[in-house]
Amino acid sequence: MGIEELAGRLREFAVDRDWEQFHTPKNIAMALAGETGELLAELQWLTPEESRKVMDDAAAGARMRAELGDVFLYLIRLADLLGVDLAQAAEDKLEENERRYDAGTYRGSARKAPPL
Amino acid sequence: MGIEELAGRLREFAVDRDWEQFHTPKNIAMALAGETGELLAELQWLTPEESRKVMDDAAAGARMRAELGDVFLYLIRLADLLGVDLAQAAEDKLEENERRYDAGTYRGSARKAPPL
Amino acid sequence: MGIEELAGRLREFAVDRDWEQFHTPKNIAMALAGETGELLAELQWLTPEESRKVMDDAAAGARMRAELGDVFLYLIRLADLLGVDLAQAAEDKLEENERRYDAGTYRGSARKAPPL
Amino acid sequence: MGIEELAGRLREFAVDRDWEQFHTPKNIAMALAGETGELLAELQWLTPEESRKVMDDAAAGARMRAELGDVFLYLIRLADLLGVDLAQAAEDKLEENERRYDAGTYRGSARKAPPL
Repeated sequence: MGIEELAGRLREFAVDRDWEQFHTPKNIAMALAGETGELLAELQWLTPEESRKVMDDAAAGARMRAELGDVFLYLIRLADLLGVDLAQAAEDKLEENERRYDAGTYRGSARKAPPL
Repeated sequence: MGIEELAGRLREFAVDRDWEQFHTPKNIAMALAGETGELLAELQWLTPEESRKVMDDAAAGARMRAELGDVFLYLIRLADLLGVDLAQAAEDKLEENERRYDAGTYRGSARKAPPL
Repeated sequence: MGIEELAGRLREFAVDRDWEQFHTPKNIAMALAGETGELLAELQWLTPEESRKVMDDAAAGARMRAELGDVFLYLIRLADLLGVDLAQAAEDKLEENERRYDAGTYRGSARKAPPL
Repeated sequence: MGIEELAGRLREFAVDRDWEQFHTPKNIAMALAGETGELLAELQWLTPEESRKVMDDAAAGARMRAELGDVFLYLIRLADLLGVDLAQAAEDKLEENERRYDAGTYRGSARKAPPL
């Protein structure tokens, strides 16, 4: 199912429960942050190396996958409420980053490179 | 550009800059939370009603769109590093929510309804 | 119990469980963000007006108080690990904000006033 | 300056700028999360070991100290708006954790030990 279809399903989901009243961008952004916090909690005590293997544990992997799904659902809902094309916004930002962080200058340095 | 294509571009972006060493799931999850925080900051002083109109202001709208793009890029990168199909994870979670929060019982009540 | 005493109790708590190995500033910062996410979740579906009355509900109030305690504990632990005097850091930042946002210019405007 | 005195100064700060209208618990919680995100961003590309030495770099250390101050200010403001004694809430939660995670059972294990 694509982003558009998921956005449509989330719209129906809210309408069917009369939850549109609660789905302001402000509230959904808070819910997105709450789910992102749950995702962080899954990784907080792991070393960076252990975090690469988190999916190897069936239970931890299932929780991680569910958190990723939750974050994506709220992100899709927020973008839909704001009329933003999420994939296009990401592509535009990626192209900006590709220009801003040229491979030569930023090679191997995270200090100089906060974003992706 | 679809999620898969964006994930591929992000992979190249990291390889070209030798940033794979920094892109552990733990680090990317922190970056995702940092960007989510910037997104919240755009809405923190607005009323829920004002937040529905945030895109009407050209400058605030452009910042909001950029933050949504940033959050999506880190989410795609994180899912790709973990080998998780983001759209499928979202669809599965949505179906779980549809079952769990039946329209009859939860109609009009946010108290009883934490998730989407 | 003051901040110093709480910091000391948290140090003992970690030593007694041999958890110092997990208490890196990076990990504690993630835990702080995770708890902040839980705090947000308590308020996400409330209107700003309802959020002013959240303590009136015994159950919601108890959860809110516990989340505030959790966030403060991780904040104290993080500052202690970094050797930062939390109260002094806050006082210095407050004085900076008092200078930066003079009452005359910023009166009644949140647009012009992101911070406290 | 103690927590009570800082809370009083923040009250005056808001009154002098007529910002009480913006300082709902919901809005302050969002600001707290936003500042926590900035704090995470300071540590996201560091290894856990590097994060222990973040204060050794003058510039990074100053940013870290400022972020800790920002987070504490919003936390104090939020607790004050809700009438919660922050230190007491933390002490109560710490005692709960001391009971819940007895040193014998949880020694050396983060898996079994999500909280502090």
